[in-house]
Order: sequence, then C-alpha cells, then structure tokens
Amino acid sequence: MSHIRGRFSKPADKLAARYTASLTYDRRLYQQDITGSIAHAKMLGKQGIITAEEARTIIGGLDSIREEIARGEFEFKTELEDIHMAVESRLIEKVGDVGRKLHTARSRNDQVALDTRLFVIGAIADTIKALRNFQRALLDLAEANKDVIIPGYTHLQVAQPVLLAHHLLAYFEMAERDIARLSDSFKRVDVLPLGSGALAGVANSVDREFLAKELGFSQVSRNSLDAVADRDFILEYEAGAAICMMHLSRLAEELVMWSSAEFGFVEIDDVYATGSSIMPQKKNPDVAELARGKTGRVYGHLLALLTTMKGLPLAYNRDMQEDKEGLFDTVDTLLATLEVFAGMVRTLKINPENTHQAAERGYILATDLADYLVKKGEAFRTAHESVAKLVNYAVRKGKSFSELKINEYQRFSPMFDEDVYQISVESSLAARDVSGGTSPRRVKQALARARRTVGRG
Amino acid sequence: MSHIRGRFSKPADKLAARYTASLTYDRRLYQQDITGSIAHAKMLGKQGIITAEEARTIIGGLDSIREEIARGEFEFKTELEDIHMAVESRLIEKVGDVGRKLHTARSRNDQVALDTRLFVIGAIADTIKALRNFQRALLDLAEANKDVIIPGYTHLQVAQPVLLAHHLLAYFEMAERDIARLSDSFKRVDVLPLGSGALAGVANSVDREFLAKELGFSQVSRNSLDAVADRDFILEYEAGAAICMMHLSRLAEELVMWSSAEFGFVEIDDVYATGSSIMPQKKNPDVAELARGKTGRVYGHLLALLTTMKGLPLAYNRDMQEDKEGLFDTVDTLLATLEVFAGMVRTLKINPENTHQAAERGYILATDLADYLVKKGEAFRTAHESVAKLVNYAVRKGKSFSELKINEYQRFSPMFDEDVYQISVESSLAARDVSGGTSPRRVKQALARARRTVGRG
Amino acid sequence: MSHIRGRFSKPADKLAARYTASLTYDRRLYQQDITGSIAHAKMLGKQGIITAEEARTIIGGLDSIREEIARGEFEFKTELEDIHMAVESRLIEKVGDVGRKLHTARSRNDQVALDTRLFVIGAIADTIKALRNFQRALLDLAEANKDVIIPGYTHLQVAQPVLLAHHLLAYFEMAERDIARLSDSFKRVDVLPLGSGALAGVANSVDREFLAKELGFSQVSRNSLDAVADRDFILEYEAGAAICMMHLSRLAEELVMWSSAEFGFVEIDDVYATGSSIMPQKKNPDVAELARGKTGRVYGHLLALLTTMKGLPLAYNRDMQEDKEGLFDTVDTLLATLEVFAGMVRTLKINPENTHQAAERGYILATDLADYLVKKGEAFRTAHESVAKLVNYAVRKGKSFSELKINEYQRFSPMFDEDVYQISVESSLAARDVSGGTSPRRVKQALARARRTVGRG
Amino acid sequence: MSHIRGRFSKPADKLAARYTASLTYDRRLYQQDITGSIAHAKMLGKQGIITAEEARTIIGGLDSIREEIARGEFEFKTELEDIHMAVESRLIEKVGDVGRKLHTARSRNDQVALDTRLFVIGAIADTIKALRNFQRALLDLAEANKDVIIPGYTHLQVAQPVLLAHHLLAYFEMAERDIARLSDSFKRVDVLPLGSGALAGVANSVDREFLAKELGFSQVSRNSLDAVADRDFILEYEAGAAICMMHLSRLAEELVMWSSAEFGFVEIDDVYATGSSIMPQKKNPDVAELARGKTGRVYGHLLALLTTMKGLPLAYNRDMQEDKEGLFDTVDTLLATLEVFAGMVRTLKINPENTHQAAERGYILATDLADYLVKKGEAFRTAHESVAKLVNYAVRKGKSFSELKINEYQRFSPMFDEDVYQISVESSLAARDVSGGTSPRRVKQALARARRTVGRG
Repeated sequence: MSHIRGRFSKPADKLAARYTASLTYDRRLYQQDITGSIAHAKMLGKQGIITAEEARTIIGGLDSIREEIARGEFEFKTELEDIHMAVESRLIEKVGDVGRKLHTARSRNDQVALDTRLFVIGAIADTIKALRNFQRALLDLAEANKDVIIPGYTHLQVAQPVLLAHHLLAYFEMAERDIARLSDSFKRVDVLPLGSGALAGVANSVDREFLAKELGFSQVSRNSLDAVADRDFILEYEAGAAICMMHLSRLAEELVMWSSAEFGFVEIDDVYATGSSIMPQKKNPDVAELARGKTGRVYGHLLALLTTMKGLPLAYNRDMQEDKEGLFDTVDTLLATLEVFAGMVRTLKINPENTHQAAERGYILATDLADYLVKKGEAFRTAHESVAKLVNYAVRKGKSFSELKINEYQRFSPMFDEDVYQISVESSLAARDVSGGTSPRRVKQALARARRTVGRG
Repeated sequence: MSHIRGRFSKPADKLAARYTASLTYDRRLYQQDITGSIAHAKMLGKQGIITAEEARTIIGGLDSIREEIARGEFEFKTELEDIHMAVESRLIEKVGDVGRKLHTARSRNDQVALDTRLFVIGAIADTIKALRNFQRALLDLAEANKDVIIPGYTHLQVAQPVLLAHHLLAYFEMAERDIARLSDSFKRVDVLPLGSGALAGVANSVDREFLAKELGFSQVSRNSLDAVADRDFILEYEAGAAICMMHLSRLAEELVMWSSAEFGFVEIDDVYATGSSIMPQKKNPDVAELARGKTGRVYGHLLALLTTMKGLPLAYNRDMQEDKEGLFDTVDTLLATLEVFAGMVRTLKINPENTHQAAERGYILATDLADYLVKKGEAFRTAHESVAKLVNYAVRKGKSFSELKINEYQRFSPMFDEDVYQISVESSLAARDVSGGTSPRRVKQALARARRTVGRG
Repeated sequence: MSHIRGRFSKPADKLAARYTASLTYDRRLYQQDITGSIAHAKMLGKQGIITAEEARTIIGGLDSIREEIARGEFEFKTELEDIHMAVESRLIEKVGDVGRKLHTARSRNDQVALDTRLFVIGAIADTIKALRNFQRALLDLAEANKDVIIPGYTHLQVAQPVLLAHHLLAYFEMAERDIARLSDSFKRVDVLPLGSGALAGVANSVDREFLAKELGFSQVSRNSLDAVADRDFILEYEAGAAICMMHLSRLAEELVMWSSAEFGFVEIDDVYATGSSIMPQKKNPDVAELARGKTGRVYGHLLALLTTMKGLPLAYNRDMQEDKEGLFDTVDTLLATLEVFAGMVRTLKINPENTHQAAERGYILATDLADYLVKKGEAFRTAHESVAKLVNYAVRKGKSFSELKINEYQRFSPMFDEDVYQISVESSLAARDVSGGTSPRRVKQALARARRTVGRG
Repeated sequence: MSHIRGRFSKPADKLAARYTASLTYDRRLYQQDITGSIAHAKMLGKQGIITAEEARTIIGGLDSIREEIARGEFEFKTELEDIHMAVESRLIEKVGDVGRKLHTARSRNDQVALDTRLFVIGAIADTIKALRNFQRALLDLAEANKDVIIPGYTHLQVAQPVLLAHHLLAYFEMAERDIARLSDSFKRVDVLPLGSGALAGVANSVDREFLAKELGFSQVSRNSLDAVADRDFILEYEAGAAICMMHLSRLAEELVMWSSAEFGFVEIDDVYATGSSIMPQKKNPDVAELARGKTGRVYGHLLALLTTMKGLPLAYNRDMQEDKEGLFDTVDTLLATLEVFAGMVRTLKINPENTHQAAERGYILATDLADYLVKKGEAFRTAHESVAKLVNYAVRKGKSFSELKINEYQRFSPMFDEDVYQISVESSLAARDVSGGTSPRRVKQALARARRTVGRG
C-alpha cells in the first residue's frame, strides 16, 4: 500500500482499507501471479529493459517466494492490499532495490487480467476432466444395468418404457455439450493481456509474443483498453457452469425422487447419505439435495458479475475486483459437485423389480396401441383418438390393457385384432429402433460409442 | 455425525462429508445456538421433561462451551458436520450422559430455524443502526454545505438547479424506506419455530410460550411443517438488502462521476481513496466503485436463495442449508458498505464554485422561462414550445439566455419583457416552494425534520 | 412527440422512435393517467392556476377520452410516444387550446410516478384478494378431507405421518405471510408524488394535500428528487410476488409428484389437465407445471428491474421506463396463477387409501419408538441411537416394526416392552399435541382459526 | 385441443385453457413449424409411411396455410392451444382425413424442439449480421475522427491520453467476441431433434438423415430423451445476448456521460434524442439510456429460463413452454439495440476541442514522467514514488507539470532534466507503440485490420 500512496497525504482509513483489500481471497492466485511475474522478468531481461543479472535475481527471488507460500511460511499482510503487492513487496525485502524494477512495463490492470486468465484456463481443464470422470461413472452404471427398464416420463407421468441406460445416456449428452461449450470458451481466455499496461499499452519495447509463448497463450490481445476492461471470459465460464449445474440439478431431482419410498427405484449408497437428528430411520439423499440447492449459488454468481459489469465505462474500474470470489466459488462448487456425483452415481444401487413394475403401470403402452392401428392403416390422429377413448373406458372399468377383452378393444376400432395382446414393454422398446431411440440395439451402440469417447478412466 | 449414523452400515465418504458439512460457516451461529439450547434446557426442566438438576448441569455445560468458543479454545471438528452437533457432542464430553437429553423434544430442523431467526433479528437491528448512522452522515454533510447549489439532472443532462442538501435528502428518504422495510419484515422473523420438531410438532408437553418469552419472540409459529420449511424471512432480508444496495450504488455512481476531473464537484478524502500501481497521479474513488460493484453480489445472493427454494416439496430439504453463506455475506457486505459510506460522506469535500458554475450552464433556467410565460397567462404547453424554440435559436447563435436581447426573446413570445432578466438560479430555487421542493425555505424545514428523526448520533 | 420536440431541428429517427416509445404497453395505465389528470385539473382550478371554467372543460374532455378508450374507439398513435402524450394530445384536439394548460405544474416524471403508484395500489389489492381466495380453496380441500393422513416428508423421505389438512395449512400460512408482506409494502406505495415536477418541485402554488385526498393517498412525498427517481415500490411488489410464486412452485411440485403413478395421492380434475399429442393415455398436470415454470419469469422481472436501477444517478433516467412491462407481467402472472390454483385445489380428488398406505411405510414410526424410550427414562440421544440400530437390523431382516418380535426389540434396548406394539400412525399423530402440531385436536383448532381469518368467500 | 382430449371426460376449464395456451406467442413460429412439417411429410412419403400422393396433398395444404398466415387471413383460435395444433387442425379442414396422418412418427415434443431450434438458428444469423453492422458503424466513426484524442480513464479518473479510435476499437473487439461466442454456440443448435418422438424415439422407419439434410442441420441428436428435454441452446443464446447487452450498456453509459454538459465530448444526433415534457432546453440521450436499462430485461430472461429448468426431471415438462417469450424478447431487444446503436454511433458528433482539452487535464502525463525516469535508469517502483510525490507537491502548489520549474522537478529526482518539458500528450501516445497499444501507428494498423474483417457493408 505504502508503495502506491505517494500521492496522498494520509494513510487509508482502516475500515476502507479492509473494504478495498482483496488479499484475503486473491492470495489464491499466487501461483498464477508468480508465474506471470517470472515470464515478465525474463522478457524484461531478454529485451534489455533490465539486465540479465537483474532478471536472474528477480526470478530467483520469485521462485523462493513461491516456495515460502507453498510451505505456508509467507505472511500475508492485509495492508499490502492484494497478492500482487504482497509478492512485490516481499521481493524487494528479499532481493533489495532490483525488485523495484519488476513492475516496469506492467500495471496491476494487465497483471490481474493475466492472473485471472491463467486461473480460468486451469479451471476449464479441471472442469472438463471432472466432466469426463462423471461421464465415465454414468457409463459404468449404465453398462452394469444395461437391461434395466424404467418408465420414461413426461410431465412426471409415465409415458413410454425406456432403458435405464438410455436415460443415463441423456445425461452423458448433456455433459458432452458442457465440455464442448467450455472448450469453445477456452479460445476467448487463451489471449495474453500483458503489455496493455494500465489501459493504453506500455511505453517500452516489450516482446508480447515471447510472453505469450512463455505463458502458453496462443494469441495476444488486440486492444489494450479492452484487454484490461474485459471480464467476458469469467462470465462465459460462469454461464457454462450455470448450465452444467442445471443439468446436475435435474439428475439430483431424479435421484431424490427415485430414492423415495414411493418410487423405490434406487438406493443411494450409505456413504453418500446422512441421517436425521431426530428420526432414527431416515436415510437422506443429502448430496443430491445439496447439489440441487447449490445450483442457486452458481446462478447467483453469474448474475452478480453480470450486474457488476453492467454500465461500467472503460477501462478498468475497481468494481471489477468483485469478479474473483464468485469465480472461485463457482469453480469449487462445480468441481466438488461433479466429483461427488461421480462417486454417488457409480455406487448407486438399482432396484430392477421396482423399475420394471413401474414400467408396466398406467397404460404406458397406449402409444404402442396407436402405432399398432397406424400400421394397420389408420391415420395417426384417428388412431390416437381411438386409443384415448379406449383408455378413458379402461380407466372407468378399472381394467388394464391386458385385462380388456378383444371385443372391448374393437368397440374403439375395428382394426384391433388378437395380435394386440402381443404388445409388451419389450416390444415397445424394440420398436423404437431409430437413431437416438431406446431400442436395446440402439442403446448398445450408443453405449459403445460413448465409451469410445471417454475411455475407461 | 456418529451420533446420527446409527442407521447406517458405513461411515460417510470423505468427499461427501465435506460436501455436506456446514460447520465451516455455521459455527458463526454458535451464540444463537447456545442461547437457544439454554432456553430449551430451561424449558425441559420447568416442564419436568428432565429434572431441574439435569437442566442446571446442561446449562452450565453450555455456558462453559460458549466461553470456550469465545476464547478461541473450541475445536471445530468437520466430522461433526454442523454447529448443532459440534456443541451437543462437546456437551456430552463435558457433562456426560445427561447431555444426551438436551435434544429431547427438538430436531435440527426447528433448531436451525431458530438459530437463523435469531441471527436475522440481530442483523435487522444492526442494519437499522447502520442506516441511521449513514443518514446522520448525509445530514452532517448537508448541514455543513447548506447553501451549495448544484445542477439537478435528469437523463444526466442539467435540468434545474437544486440545493446539494436537497439532493442529499433524497438519499435520506431512501434510507428511511429501507429502515421501514426492514422494520416491517421484522414481524415475520419474530416467530418462534421451536416445538415444531422435525416437521410434525414434538410429542412432549413443551411450553412454547415460555420459550418465546425466554428468547424474546412475540409470536410462536402456527404450523410445524411451515415452521421448518420457511425461509421467507431470509429472502425478505435479502430483498431489502438488495434494494438498499441499489440505493447506495446510485450514490456511489454519483460520487464517482462527481469526483471526475470533468465534474469536479467533490473530492473524496484521501483516506477513502487509493492510488495506482503505475499512474502516480491517480486518486481513485475505490470505495464508491466497490460499493457499486458489490451490489451485484447482494443481488446474486437473493437470486441464489430464490432459486434454491424454488420447487422444493415440504418440509425441510437439505438444499435449504444453502441459505446461510449468502445471508452472512449479505449482512457483512451491507453493514460494511453502510459504515464505510458514512465515513466517506462525512469527510467529503465539496467544491462549491464548480457546482455553482455547473448550475449556471446549459439553459438550465429554461423551465423558469416557461413558468414565466405561464404566469403571464400563456398556456403551459404553448409556453414550453416557445421556450424550446428559443433554446434552439440560442444554441444556433451560441448565446446564453442572459446574452439574448429582449427583441430576440420576443420573437418567440410577445409576452417576454425586461423582467425576464431577473430570472436566476436563485430565483429558480426560491420558486420551487412546494412541500418536497428545493426552495431554501423548504429544504431548511426538511433538514430540521430529518435531524429530529435521527438525532445527532 | 411534436409537442416536446420544439428544441430540435429534426424529427426522431423511425427506429429510435419505436425503440423509445412506450405507448404499446403503457396504454394499460390510461385509467390511472386520466384519474390523475382529472384530480390535477381540479386542483389547478381550485388554486386559481387555471379558471374554474377551464378546469371543467378539461375534466369533461378527459372523461370523454376515458370513455373513448373504454369503448375501444381511441386511436393510439405510436408517434405520440406514451400514454401521457396520447391523452394530452387528444385532449387538445377535443377541447382546444385550454387543453394546453393541463400540464401546468406537472412533469411527465411525477405524472408517470403517480400512474404507476396507482397501478401498484390496485395490484396489491387484487393480489391480496386472490390470495384470500386461494386460502379459502386450501381450507375447502382441508375441511373436506380432514381425516386424511399422509406421510410427512423431509428430504422427500417419509418422516412422520401428518394430516393432509395440516400440510395444506402450511400453505395457508405462507399465503398469510404473503398478504402481510404486501400489506406492509402498501405503506410505501401510498405516497403522492405529484407536485415534484421534473425533479425540483413545481413553481406554482399547488395544493398537494388536496391532490392526495382526491386520489386516496395518505401521505405526500417528502423530497422531489427522490419522488421521481424512486421505483422501490415496484421492486417491493416484485420481491413479494417472487416469494409468493416460490410458495406456489412448492405446492406445484407436490401436486406434480402426488399425481404421478408412483405416489398416486391425488387426481387433478380433468379440467385442469391436458393430454399428449402422441401418447393417448397421458393426463398431464400442466397447470401445476406451468406455475412452477412461471416462477422463473417472475424472478426474472425482479432481477431485471434491480439491474436496471443499479448505478443510476438521480433523478429520472429513461432507463426507468423499463419498469413497466415486467411489472405488468408479474401482476398478470401472479393473479392468473393464484386464480387457477384456487380452482385446481378446490377440485382436487384425494386418494385416501394411497396416502394412508404410504403413511404406514418405511419405519415412519421410528421417532415414536425413540419417544417411547425417552418416556421410559432413556436419554433422547441414546434412544435415537438404539432405534437407529433397530432400523438397520429390521432393514437387513426385511421386517417391518410390527413384524419384529419383542425379543428382537429388546436386543436394542431393555426398556422395550409389549406396549411398543400400541404405537401406530394414529397414536403418532395424537402425540404431536403441541401448538402448531399435527394432532387432530390441534389441526381442528387451526382450521377453525384459519376459517375465521378468511371467511367463506 | 379436442384432438388430444379424447382421454378426458370434460373440456378444459376456460381459465386453465388460457393459462396453458401458448398460441398467442408461439404463432410467431409458424414459418418454422410449417417448414418442419413439410420436410416431415416429404420424409413420410419417401419412406412409404404415407403414400406419395398423401405427402403431396399434405404439403400442398401446408403451403397454402403458410400463405394464409402470411396474408393475415388465418384465424388463430386459442382453444387450439398452440401453433402446432392450429396448423394441423386447419390442415385437416383443408385436405380432409389425410391431414390426420401428418403427425405420424412425430410428437409435439420433438416438433417444438425443432421449431425452436430453427428459430434460434435464424436469430444467431441475424444477430451476427447486426453485430457486423454495429462494428462498421464503430469503424466509420473511428475513421472519420482518427486524430481525435480523448483522456483514457480508469476508475473514471483521467489516466492516460488515448486516441478516440483506439477507444472505439475496444468495442469492436467486444463485438468480435460476441460474434465468436454466437458462432460457437451455433454448433449446439445445429442438431435435428425430429425422430425423438415424445421421449423414446419413434417406432417407424423414419429417415433422420434425410430430414436433417432437408432442414439444413448438419447433425442429428444422439439421445431421444435428451433431445426433447434440452433447452441449452436457448440458454446459450441468452447468455451470449446478456454479455453483448452488457457491452452495449458500457458504451451507453459512456455516451450518456460524454454528452453531459460536464464532459461535452459528443453530441448525439437530434434524431436519436428526445425532449422533456417540462424543461424546454433538454436534449436527452434516451436511446443510450434505454439500451442501458434494457440490459436488465435481457439478464432477467436468462435467469428466468435457468430458474425454470432447474430441477426438472426428464424428459419434457410443461414448465419448458416458458422458454419462448423470454427468447423472443431477448432476440427482439438485442437486434433493435444493435440496429439503433449503429445509427446513433454513425451520426455521433465529436467535439475534438473538448476531448483534447480534457486529455491535457489532471497530471495525465504522470506515467510518462515515471517512464522518463525509468529510461534514465531509475527502478520503476522508485520512479513511480518520486512522481507520486511530485504530483502531491504540484497539487498543493496548484501548478500543472508545465508550470513547475526544473529545480522543483529535481527536488523529487535528480534525474529530471530540461528534456522533461518535451513530454506531451502526443509523445505519450506515440510512446505506446506496442501491439494493442494506442500509438497512432498501431491504431492505424488496427483500423485497417478491423476494416478488412468487416468490409464496408
């Protein structure tokens, strides 16, 4: 702080200092910050902006600070405001006045943009890895239960029978899109901001291409004002995370319902469930519930940053410091949720009798009856109406399809014949033999394809 | 944890345990938790559910745990999951098996509802106090600059001159509404949930009225399912906080603009400003910018909890554990912002020459010209049109109103006469002598009234 | 538009005119606008700002415009930008130049604040009425099924048996808070802004108290800048609506689940259900689903306005025109949802055999077993642990509580005796005889009390 | 409706019918719906599921319905619920019973997914086109004012001089990212859902590859459950729109400030400004304000859909019908804003004297002084401190840099020499000769490059 308050006659108010300090959370960026500073020092040396000897001294100092922090021996002093100042100040302590040259041709504005970009690059890689692991867990469960039939639902009403594996593959596809979305967003993070200075570009003969190469960026930013004012890459990560959490909230909802006494489709492994402080019998699907609940938190962070950025004039404004805590929490929440879901999914116990019994329930084969009539030549809409009336009749009589007599069928369409009794859950599944459909043949292919995509982990 | 996992055959997965644990943040509720437990134990004793001796032992144990925590000597073990279990477990360690009786006639569901309500009750009181302090700071600044004239803006275009004090009183009124809103919301927090048990009410002869009195509640909840499933009181606090932060963001925006070189209306005290790492001349209004930015965070927490609560079946669901971190951060952010704003406002330096000069600019008296014509008998809409054309003319000629000749005025309305030159910023102010208006007389009354409301602090 | 473009040399760009026009939606405020203008004209006449004759003429003109609009004969021309200009322009057409005097001592800024406040006042009244009607529907259903037992859930796991009526009363309480919240917010809408002019107060001897009385306000605004810059009253309505929709989304979720084949607790009346275009058997709870989905829309409007207002300098900014569409849609959505829910709830068919059977399931009486041991002298935590182990044992043996032998019970606690078999769903209910609890006696009292609150409609 | 209510004994409640109907807004999808149905009929014919003659009849009927709608002669009956039923019902009216075969091998679930995807595909194309046009407007303005210097700001404090063109190019880069983001998202919309049926895949020998080719999709969906349950592609568009509106809100904020009397940097063309109803002199930047305000609306729609989708079990739920209105309004708002901004930017009048004068203000060259010392061999941090103290001294003396004597300079560093007086706004600009920097040479290159990207339109 003292380093940059030369212009002022008074020290900062304590309250204000605490209000504006970010060191309590941006210390998390120390790796990125030191990595960036080392590349910067190397470049300054290479360009002769500082001597090679000075560069070496600075780099040595930075390396040892990194170790100090890793060992937990670094003292983070809030009055140093942020991680950048904390590291620079310690560097000067360690290596003396040469440390005062590190910030040449750089500003905190391009430095913090760099550090945050490096962090998001890591977060994208970690998230994709966690998504792949989650996909593998889905496949493991699907392959281990590949003959299990469940009722497919729309409007939470039983609709048509589907294979459990088919259902799980729907989540596989969602994760596949999540990965594609994050991969695409990577292109917009993969841009070096260093060299932009405070806002106008630096006034030294820096080598931005060298910096980009050192730090693994494939592009350099094209406009200095934009480079320090841009937080799109965080928003894009957070939007991707929000969509991904939404997907997980859907699976969570299903796991909660499926493990209810009324559904009884699955049992969550004890290690992912918790008990009640008062009701001794309870086995609660807390992990699934919390994941569903944490969706709110991730949405909240996205909207928080969108709100913060709204209406800010160029270039950097201090409001933007608010980008970090939400980002960190988004990454932590998403990674933890994916990781714990992978474990929970892998250990899920399916109750195939219950699911199969449920898949027989509630006139679930009505569509197949309509399809039957269509195959006999009826127009679809007419077939649909006939079967709808048949269902209405059966409900009133309290009979299932198999309990209806053929003459009862024929009241609703003369096309019904004895072969109507051959319609079964199995025939229904087999009939959906279209790409993307739930027939056993198609699902087997889809499983194989999915496994090729992700490997065995 | 072990206390409530008797039903399970395996311990929790480590990852899952960390994912579901809340102790890292709900330890903040230890005061509320122990206060609630002491009242509960007292009630159990009074009702003969436990003996008087047992109650005394438990209360003694709880008191000493409270001191342990206050002294920083309490070990928070994450495996104990939450503050409730951490305290109960330590109680049993300290007082032996009698501690196992504390949780009689209680569930974590009503316990956590109680703790959170007690927290919000404290937060409302603190926030109102901080709002009062902020109001006093506005009044201090207004009274110290009671003759300062600034341009009033609409659309950020100079509109009509107003007193700075009048402008500051607008924020006073916003804070007044914030206080009223929080006070009203208090009625819905001031309800004792204890006795609701897990969801159905407890099966013991508890005395809920006694508990309410002990804990300072004026009502007891009327439905046990609702009592454990309700988080409206947090949402209502967060909505009030969001509106309050919105108000502060507007003042922040003005302070940022007013301290720009272009406006030059105010100078923020050095102790509330910070410098630049690269531009030595910079004096940045960081506190105001951060407050504006933190508005996003507070909005985010509100939306997070609304999202979390959406579509949850009754009664308690683990999703609801997500209510706490957002609440804590909302309270902390709002209180810190109000406190630091009070200081910043109180020490703000006004540049009256600049504001007065700005208040003379840009045909700001055009409305007064129209009012002048209306007083001479012109219909308002016609007067407005005549003056609008006059302005158009003056702009093209590059003349101010005072530089226009009387015959130039008369081209636009024959009603213009020499007394038009008497229109001034001062006459404009004085003319707005309506309740709520900016005339010096009205503003003086408003200041006196506001001061009576808040006192001198 | 032409009325207020005298200052400009060119007409507005067509695209820009459409972009800025609000007439397509603010025409909905015509009643409020004309009511406000009539009161304003009356006041202008009373104060001698215009003559009594002029006032009469203007009021007559406004009355006939109101009728024109009501009869659908009014032509809304977008080039007139907004409802205020549309009405004023038509007034001048109808009554001639005297119409040009109506806007004396008024600005669109205080006028639109007035109109919107009048609208919100109506919306609050309508919403409270709709909430009362919804409460009555809940009571009708509860009273008609007052002996029905359902499993109470936490974490969607069966927890303890409760009365359906008790469950429905939880929603009654939520609605009660919604009403209280809206009623409280009314105090902050019930403030007359007229007299504030554009931002500084008007320069005429207006009688604001008279206006307030005419228009039914009990207070006048205390600060003109605040009066035209304030939209808190919309935000507060929208926050209340968001919380109310959240409540309805919870009920919707339950109705969707309860009408699934797996739960089978309720049947939604045919008139509130829809079919499938392809699956003839489907009966979908669309109304409940849509209500759950529309929660997003109402949250979105709240966030939208919070975002819009963030960081706006005083006083009026055109951004604020964005307040209306979200408000209108919020009111429409909330009222329609309440109305359709009242009908759906009232006609809901309960399947008591299914609910009762479900209420017997899953060791739901485990808490009662623990309470039993506590009554025999065991410490609660110990009793809880014993029963948890008993449950674990029973699960492994595949036995229900009633199937366990007494010696099996006694393995887990010597305090178990033959009277343990007397524990039943009914005894469990009866035992929760605490205020707010689910015992039949308490629920009967609660129903009676609730009915007294709302009457029979 | 009647078509799909065969299963029910009663017609829908009127209120419920209105509540659930989407025809009032989804009629906007009629083009997409008919295009999809024509391709579907063609495929049914090709596969022999219906005869070639039947296919021809259906296609002819659909074509003529499309024309009826285009001519405004189609009667949209709300009781037909949605656009799909409205078209099918009219088809049957027109072509008789053969029309009842159109819905073979299709469900509304995959049909509405198809229609919405086709709509979003069009929206992406339109948005990219509008963004390109906006970029061209930025370039037109930049090229026409390529020598204009403005103060660059951080924290809204003058920081360093920059070229206006450089500033405008920052927005060009933002738009470039918006385009890239939308283009990437296109890959996830470009997937044919047809063939997925209600949820499980259809039971006919459909040719999905043929359908994809007919409708211009490059992929077919891989999982039928996912295909009907997925709304990611809307969310991704809305997230991109939110980020884009955030960018526009920043430009809007600058235009509002820059057109204030205090800044006086720009004048918005009369055709994009509006007047006041009361203040005749006002020229308000309404278009910019509304764009800033509409950012809230677009954020709101994103949150709304995220909320709606949260926690929905697979596959289709009626909640998802809520996806459309927000999407339509997002597209309309974004396109209108881009279009009107292009016009406003192109016609913006810059006041170069004002901007240049502002760029001389406030020790804006302090960084150049520090750079000067660094070039003389001083360490950057030391140079920064010396200049900060120099600024503090100059502020207290009330002197600008050029008014300081050389010996005053030398009090703060002995390295200052007479050549310090050569530092100027122009030398400062020229010095930032780094890629992405504001030097005239670099900006010229950047303009040329940008122009090559977008052409002249």
